[in-house]
Amino acid sequence: MRSVLAVGAHPDDIELGCGATLLAHHQAGDRVTMLVLTGGENGPGDEFGQAGLRRLEQQRAARTLGAELRWGGLRDCTVVPDSATIGIIEAALRATDADLVYVHAPDDSHQDHRAVSAATLSAARRLSRVMHYQSPSTLTFTPTVFVDVTAHLSGKLAALGAHASQVEMSAMVEPDAVVASARHWGAQARIGYAEAFAPTRMVLDLAPALRPSAEVPTPRPAVEDLVVTAHRLSSLIAAPVAAPVAAG
Amino acid sequence: MRSVLAVGAHPDDIELGCGATLLAHHQAGDRVTMLVLTGGENGPGDEFGQAGLRRLEQQRAARTLGAELRWGGLRDCTVVPDSATIGIIEAALRATDADLVYVHAPDDSHQDHRAVSAATLSAARRLSRVMHYQSPSTLTFTPTVFVDVTAHLSGKLAALGAHASQVEMSAMVEPDAVVASARHWGAQARIGYAEAFAPTRMVLDLAPALRPSAEVPTPRPAVEDLVVTAHRLSSLIAAPVAAPVAAG
Amino acid sequence: MRSVLAVGAHPDDIELGCGATLLAHHQAGDRVTMLVLTGGENGPGDEFGQAGLRRLEQQRAARTLGAELRWGGLRDCTVVPDSATIGIIEAALRATDADLVYVHAPDDSHQDHRAVSAATLSAARRLSRVMHYQSPSTLTFTPTVFVDVTAHLSGKLAALGAHASQVEMSAMVEPDAVVASARHWGAQARIGYAEAFAPTRMVLDLAPALRPSAEVPTPRPAVEDLVVTAHRLSSLIAAPVAAPVAAG
Amino acid sequence: MRSVLAVGAHPDDIELGCGATLLAHHQAGDRVTMLVLTGGENGPGDEFGQAGLRRLEQQRAARTLGAELRWGGLRDCTVVPDSATIGIIEAALRATDADLVYVHAPDDSHQDHRAVSAATLSAARRLSRVMHYQSPSTLTFTPTVFVDVTAHLSGKLAALGAHASQVEMSAMVEPDAVVASARHWGAQARIGYAEAFAPTRMVLDLAPALRPSAEVPTPRPAVEDLVVTAHRLSSLIAAPVAAPVAAG
Amino acid sequence: MRSVLAVGAHPDDIELGCGATLLAHHQAGDRVTMLVLTGGENGPGDEFGQAGLRRLEQQRAARTLGAELRWGGLRDCTVVPDSATIGIIEAALRATDADLVYVHAPDDSHQDHRAVSAATLSAARRLSRVMHYQSPSTLTFTPTVFVDVTAHLSGKLAALGAHASQVEMSAMVEPDAVVASARHWGAQARIGYAEAFAPTRMVLDLAPALRPSAEVPTPRPAVEDLVVTAHRLSSLIAAPVAAPVAAG
Amino acid sequence: MRSVLAVGAHPDDIELGCGATLLAHHQAGDRVTMLVLTGGENGPGDEFGQAGLRRLEQQRAARTLGAELRWGGLRDCTVVPDSATIGIIEAALRATDADLVYVHAPDDSHQDHRAVSAATLSAARRLSRVMHYQSPSTLTFTPTVFVDVTAHLSGKLAALGAHASQVEMSAMVEPDAVVASARHWGAQARIGYAEAFAPTRMVLDLAPALRPSAEVPTPRPAVEDLVVTAHRLSSLIAAPVAAPVAAG
Repeated sequence: MRSVLAVGAHPDDIELGCGATLLAHHQAGDRVTMLVLTGGENGPGDEFGQAGLRRLEQQRAARTLGAELRWGGLRDCTVVPDSATIGIIEAALRATDADLVYVHAPDDSHQDHRAVSAATLSAARRLSRVMHYQSPSTLTFTPTVFVDVTAHLSGKLAALGAHASQVEMSAMVEPDAVVASARHWGAQARIGYAEAFAPTRMVLDLAPALRPSAEVPTPRPAVEDLVVTAHRLSSLIAAPVAAPVAAG
Repeated sequence: MRSVLAVGAHPDDIELGCGATLLAHHQAGDRVTMLVLTGGENGPGDEFGQAGLRRLEQQRAARTLGAELRWGGLRDCTVVPDSATIGIIEAALRATDADLVYVHAPDDSHQDHRAVSAATLSAARRLSRVMHYQSPSTLTFTPTVFVDVTAHLSGKLAALGAHASQVEMSAMVEPDAVVASARHWGAQARIGYAEAFAPTRMVLDLAPALRPSAEVPTPRPAVEDLVVTAHRLSSLIAAPVAAPVAAG
Repeated sequence: MRSVLAVGAHPDDIELGCGATLLAHHQAGDRVTMLVLTGGENGPGDEFGQAGLRRLEQQRAARTLGAELRWGGLRDCTVVPDSATIGIIEAALRATDADLVYVHAPDDSHQDHRAVSAATLSAARRLSRVMHYQSPSTLTFTPTVFVDVTAHLSGKLAALGAHASQVEMSAMVEPDAVVASARHWGAQARIGYAEAFAPTRMVLDLAPALRPSAEVPTPRPAVEDLVVTAHRLSSLIAAPVAAPVAAG
Repeated sequence: MRSVLAVGAHPDDIELGCGATLLAHHQAGDRVTMLVLTGGENGPGDEFGQAGLRRLEQQRAARTLGAELRWGGLRDCTVVPDSATIGIIEAALRATDADLVYVHAPDDSHQDHRAVSAATLSAARRLSRVMHYQSPSTLTFTPTVFVDVTAHLSGKLAALGAHASQVEMSAMVEPDAVVASARHWGAQARIGYAEAFAPTRMVLDLAPALRPSAEVPTPRPAVEDLVVTAHRLSSLIAAPVAAPVAAG
Repeated sequence: MRSVLAVGAHPDDIELGCGATLLAHHQAGDRVTMLVLTGGENGPGDEFGQAGLRRLEQQRAARTLGAELRWGGLRDCTVVPDSATIGIIEAALRATDADLVYVHAPDDSHQDHRAVSAATLSAARRLSRVMHYQSPSTLTFTPTVFVDVTAHLSGKLAALGAHASQVEMSAMVEPDAVVASARHWGAQARIGYAEAFAPTRMVLDLAPALRPSAEVPTPRPAVEDLVVTAHRLSSLIAAPVAAPVAAG
Repeated sequence: MRSVLAVGAHPDDIELGCGATLLAHHQAGDRVTMLVLTGGENGPGDEFGQAGLRRLEQQRAARTLGAELRWGGLRDCTVVPDSATIGIIEAALRATDADLVYVHAPDDSHQDHRAVSAATLSAARRLSRVMHYQSPSTLTFTPTVFVDVTAHLSGKLAALGAHASQVEMSAMVEPDAVVASARHWGAQARIGYAEAFAPTRMVLDLAPALRPSAEVPTPRPAVEDLVVTAHRLSSLIAAPVAAPVAAG
């Protein structure tokens, strides 16, 4: 049994980047923990009185992924990769005894994402397994490691759907793009749907795999079903899928 | 009016890589030429008596893109980037007086794709605009230049559909992955659907753009429509979309 | 008509990086705006009573480029890519409704340049066209997109000449190196003189180009004339061209 | 149970690149096959009547790794990545039903290594797991995936020792450098000793691991013991460890 | 005679990264200066009353390398690449009139290392020779320039041994890994043992070399002797070599 | 005294890439050898009866650089990196006992340049110093090592001028671009004029430099003089400098 820690700057970052992979870990019997560094206690939503709602949403999303949730207590858009931030992540690593960490890719146009990526690399400096996931704001990203999420993509969309109140989400998160990217990376990986990762370092575990029902292949969900799920999700949030950003 | 030359190793390579962009060029009044280096005369299909059929299909695909078609006369899986291959491409550049070339990305696991990319870079050594497109067998690919193909994706799928007889197509070309990648790159480019390019060099044209009806934005096709088109297309070819490659 | 925003950390950064390209935009009928983040109000020159002079110089330089000028109001050598800096750039994007942004390359040894590049990538996170220019302090830089500035190099030198009082300029800005780099990149681009850009993302506009007098090719200025211009410029500033930095 | 195929250009290439990892696969119950493309039947050793001996040595080395051995039948220093070479590797993939392939890194100064890497990428174009190992002649190599070989390094040295007759070995293979690189990559991976890999693509298997005796940690061999083993090995071959290449 | 400045964030960083190269410079008659930015006056060791001890140790280490020692006076884990830090390094460059600088590689998981690398690139912006060394926490690192340290590796280990009190050292610095990396890079460079560097820019000096006793080649130390030295060193510090980090 | 081998595919390739550096080596007392692989005996010029003339020109160019000349005897546009080509370069390495090799950069659009680069990397596989120079057809090139050629640029232009008959030269070689690139790289290296190199590996020589007249700095030639020299040169060859390639 592995202990897996996923670190993200804001609510829904982790779900977007590696939510389906966390589900796969959960199903494999691994312990899964999410560390969300900002937004729970004192995020920008506070002035609208929504902090409590967003806490509930993130809690619900974590539950759908079978994950324990930890909050970093930092403030949105002010994260810096200093000793304090590193200390928060070190504490989560110690508490979970994690041997695998997922975190933002380093080259990202959001300052919080860059800071969280850098701070996690510091905190996990003695860990043998650190992998980076992609966000909509990630810039260069050349993944080489993939996880087959064909069986978990609906679960990922459900976890994203738990963040329905998040008005910011409408700007950068487009559910149909989530499905499309999973299929794009899946084609790269020669499978159906995939989440993609760029490892800083990843020590493989070659121990014999225990696969209870390997004979029964996971059925691949029809594209239409996923698109319908994505659409249903998009109807819950502010921006409709069919016109996310006006083309130049 | 630009003269655009798209170079590909095999029938359907160009359509897959930049078919919608060629349509956009055509619609902008540019002259568009496709140079397919192998497969027309003496491809592997000959033994099944299908060479004639594939010639017709490629001709039909070119017509749907508003493009002139040229054949290189080389044999599938034997292309090398030598003087003879370079000469064929140089002849096409001279005949079309092209000032913009699209060709395979250099890092590709198919030997013909690598050879065509290298030979085109030689032939176009004095040209100021050479851009690389992605194929399913492309390896590293970091695009930075994009073309908005929201209005042309259906046309691209139609052009691909013209290659219905191509049995090889079932292995690597998955229509739903074509749509997914266009959406994935579109999200990267902050638009709807995009084709993605990595330029070797691209001199921009900053002359004032003549845009007859810029006030009427191109409506973005609903995702469902494109998926339905992709499915209709996939029913024409050998492999069903729903199980392209068994996941490991 | 495009709206173009060029962002730079200090007076003369923009002229050095993309001054001739801005002239080309201006000549093509585009709206051009320069956002200079530091140096106007409270730069280091204040202690010499030169702030007013530098404001005038930057204003004059902008005028020679046909550009509107905006100041960011930050202090030289203290720029950080935080929410405040991002907000200044967002305001400029909103005010100009820009659809194309030019900014410093991310890998630069000057802390302000790095900060401005990062903050602009945040501010322009939903924009489809962001291109990076090179400064003398830029480190790795692999341009793939070029603008032909053969007709605008003299204008660029004139804009640089407007910054005659800038004593710092003598250290890193060498006018003959400006001409040499334009010719170097021009050779890379297979044209005469070029400014070079590395795009984060660049959506091409394939609309038909309206070229009023395309039949009359731009005459390429003789190399000697440009060198003479560069020398005349260098005689206006502190360091003579013939001995910029003593070779080790 | 996985089926693993390791592909190398010459005898001892595979052992050097991933010998200890193959031992780890074998111990985990995986099926392991080595495909050596040249050197068995008609290598350059023929003129010294050593072909038979080298066949025996490679056979012995494969046996120490618990691997099945296949020969490609090509001639040393003449490998090209054409259809014939690709076909040989495709046949091995089919025969072993491999789901994981190890092969040379693409950027290598030995023409056979480059050719084998390219041909394997073609042959494995539909496979979800292709990883590249390093050879002494490999040029750029940026590994991100590692296998802990602390328990298998002695076995790797033993497999290398089986190639005692190989006179070429003295030039590029230095046993103490093999141990040093394993420790170097181990430090990168935050473990003891590692073999390092750069994946073209690697789909992770997150099924629960079956670890028979995970409670008993693998004892790490003392550095001295490994060095002594390396030295004993070097005394079997032509060049002494203490003076591999005269320093400039 | 060159003047060489090596810059490091903490005590022992410089010795680890380029200690043997500094010895080679010293032996060639060059002036060598070490600038240690933190840890001397007010490092974290203060609370254990060890600051004085660490100052003495660093002083002793510098002496074994024939180097002058300068302190930056910053506090451990708080270094930022701002004007103040840049000013400290500029002062050292002026005081030593250095024409060659060694400093941390930019991509490092330790925030102080990143900051020192960036600040040094700013301070040395007009210098023609800036090379980056690797630390245990360095991430991507692709060295192309090497120094043969076969004759100076023992001296490097001795300099590291001078830092015996440094409890932190046990975590990331493993003496046997130091020897292994030197041998690994030596094999890359086709020599015995090497320190490896990635230059930002390096102007070569092609003046005729004065080599007093070039006929007598430097004897390469036996691997065993170095390992024994490494072990003796490791017995001085907290963590034993044989079990540095538990393998996952 | 070093022995330096410069390898190029065609007459004038070496002069363009590193001619001034060879002059610097010659002046430092090093032995300099040029190996030109094609064009002497049976190049494409043969049909015009110019092979003899080109042999004489290359011989004259080598003499102006103080270099010994060797011919590879291969045919233009047919070079492949096979054992025969590698053998030719190995013979030159043995004959000259070279410890430093200059050769084309690997990523080049000319097939001969790629082949010569690859074959030289094979032939020099045990050498500690291999550096790549840039050609007009080179694609990606990120130099980090530079040689100050301020005192040798006129000599480089003179060596290029010795190739006056070479009609091909008019297409890609533009003398003013040669000067411009030297100044561009010089600015990168913080000196006057530079030739730029990307090392595969470069072991530095830290022996004390013997500099006979280091007190007298090399005077930097006025830019005008170099441009005049470049123009005089261009009047000797087919294409005038002022209109090398029509800008798009």
